[in-house]
Amino acid sequence: MGGLEMERKTVGWAARDPSGVLSPYTYNLRETGAEDVYVKVMCCGICHTDIHQIKNDLGMHEVVGEVMEVGSGVTKFRAGDVVGVGCIVGCCRNCRSCKSDIEQYCNKKIWSYNDVYIDGNPTQGGFAGAMVVDQKFVVKIPDGMAPEQAAPLLCAGVTIYSPLNHFGLKESGLRGAILGLGGVGHMGVKIAKAMGHHVTVISSSNKKREEALDHLGADDYLVSSDTDRMQEVADSLDYIIDTIPVFHPLEPYLSLLKVDGKLILMGVINTPLQFITPMVMLGRKSITGSFIGSMKETEEMLEFCRDKSLTSTIEVVKMDYINTAFERLEKNDVRYRFVVDVAGSKLDI
Amino acid sequence: MGGLEMERKTVGWAARDPSGVLSPYTYNLRETGAEDVYVKVMCCGICHTDIHQIKNDLGMHEVVGEVMEVGSGVTKFRAGDVVGVGCIVGCCRNCRSCKSDIEQYCNKKIWSYNDVYIDGNPTQGGFAGAMVVDQKFVVKIPDGMAPEQAAPLLCAGVTIYSPLNHFGLKESGLRGAILGLGGVGHMGVKIAKAMGHHVTVISSSNKKREEALDHLGADDYLVSSDTDRMQEVADSLDYIIDTIPVFHPLEPYLSLLKVDGKLILMGVINTPLQFITPMVMLGRKSITGSFIGSMKETEEMLEFCRDKSLTSTIEVVKMDYINTAFERLEKNDVRYRFVVDVAGSKLDI
Repeated sequence: MGGLEMERKTVGWAARDPSGVLSPYTYNLRETGAEDVYVKVMCCGICHTDIHQIKNDLGMHEVVGEVMEVGSGVTKFRAGDVVGVGCIVGCCRNCRSCKSDIEQYCNKKIWSYNDVYIDGNPTQGGFAGAMVVDQKFVVKIPDGMAPEQAAPLLCAGVTIYSPLNHFGLKESGLRGAILGLGGVGHMGVKIAKAMGHHVTVISSSNKKREEALDHLGADDYLVSSDTDRMQEVADSLDYIIDTIPVFHPLEPYLSLLKVDGKLILMGVINTPLQFITPMVMLGRKSITGSFIGSMKETEEMLEFCRDKSLTSTIEVVKMDYINTAFERLEKNDVRYRFVVDVAGSKLDI
Repeated sequence: MGGLEMERKTVGWAARDPSGVLSPYTYNLRETGAEDVYVKVMCCGICHTDIHQIKNDLGMHEVVGEVMEVGSGVTKFRAGDVVGVGCIVGCCRNCRSCKSDIEQYCNKKIWSYNDVYIDGNPTQGGFAGAMVVDQKFVVKIPDGMAPEQAAPLLCAGVTIYSPLNHFGLKESGLRGAILGLGGVGHMGVKIAKAMGHHVTVISSSNKKREEALDHLGADDYLVSSDTDRMQEVADSLDYIIDTIPVFHPLEPYLSLLKVDGKLILMGVINTPLQFITPMVMLGRKSITGSFIGSMKETEEMLEFCRDKSLTSTIEVVKMDYINTAFERLEKNDVRYRFVVDVAGSKLDI
């Protein structure tokens, strides 16, 4: 592939000890293989998942960059394209999930960071000058979409879009609710509204009422302790996207669903959640969950957001702010997603 | 309508005090209205639900009988037809569930027993000489199907058929499991096998192995405490129909499901069941439940069972055995369903 040998060294930022403090380090990228795309990173979103990951190792996903070089087998992309890379950079390609284009459920999927690639080298993520990624895991950013806007869509956006798509919840006129208004939740309101849904934000307090109704355009706001209002909304929702990442009761929310309604869990919660069976049986309701989305859905979602002129609400920062960004993120002090302007930062401090 | 005035009095059997002992009593049936079908009861199945009901009041469902008279607006049935009546004899006809032909989820549904009909009178069930039922809740028993065989299908049969139908689980070649081998579970094995599924029976002990494999025709038998075998079956099932009516862990079973697999709960359990969210999220699995089935599904299911020559395993008893039958049922001492030969019993003892 030649010509880029000098750039095979790149600088990435990672937490390299349990303190969680990120600092720059240098590593080598692999040569651009036949199926590979060499991407110069423009910007990179930070999501909650990263906080968990950061405690042990490196990493960052939601990467948007510019194609610098493509392998001989790559036809979908060419130098100069603006592309995105999501959470996954490899899969087995032979299992039922891979063959059904839902490679995010492949048991042998390879994370874009904090994982080991098929060549035996660690995956370093997008918090770096450049990445080399198999073309299967690269998507075109639609023309006219700003790179920093696209970044959060690659994880938070598709995390919302995928279950709505899979569970048949894309049609206009549905009534949905978003439980929890963080990075994924705010995207949930925006995407569901863009689909033409009636969207209720459910929260434990009134703190986010104005934000939800006035800034994000939600149709209704419900405080979960307000039993009168909860009663009023009972049996009325087609779905609830539950982004709460800690233990919480399910029954108050199950009762809001209409027959065949779906409670879609998004938060990784290792304390058991509870429900009594009549709550699901008597309305044929489902408790389910979903995990990011496929590359196919990522493409569809990006087109959808471009067509609907949907923007994510972000705070763009430079790389030297990253440790502060993580501190603020742990306190939920961001509205709603940090995006690091990697290309505009001095990486090697 | 006339001519049947003398038969407007009928004898039913019910538990009329908290002892739960059933005894005969006489009551009046309503006149055959325009939409009504007057049915002479031939036989009636007994299911576990009845045990719960019996403690407070009357009742029996899974009724098969012969049409004696039809109202002026009834075109689907005529005198002499052998018909079935299920668990429900009324619904609002206006709600979303009614309009979608899933009247079993109507909030105003009327049970065929232990409920109050629209005329203000109690519904008395099929444990009696005769019933008057709105034609919407009557199904034709297919020619060639024995009445006593049909009876358990009207509740246990459709309870299994409905979720397989609704959740897209009818196609041949699927892999399913039945958890718990009682009245509903045994029907689950038979119906799933007739659909061409690979069927595993899961039980807490080896006691029912021979029964499941040799008599019911299951393909595999799994003891839930056998961790090696449970591991072997992991990620392989499209669905599990869980008929266990008491608290039990869900995680061992969720882990048996493949991506998009469904755990379908059938047991009314008021002790909260538990799960951790990664168990559903990482394979987009669903925990759901289902409740009997619609009249439309009941018709389909009866045709299906007739076409497949599917028979239920029953023990036919006379009415004077009924209290013993209930005692045995509470000890799970039946293989697999009692059916009362009502027409062949002396009701008024």
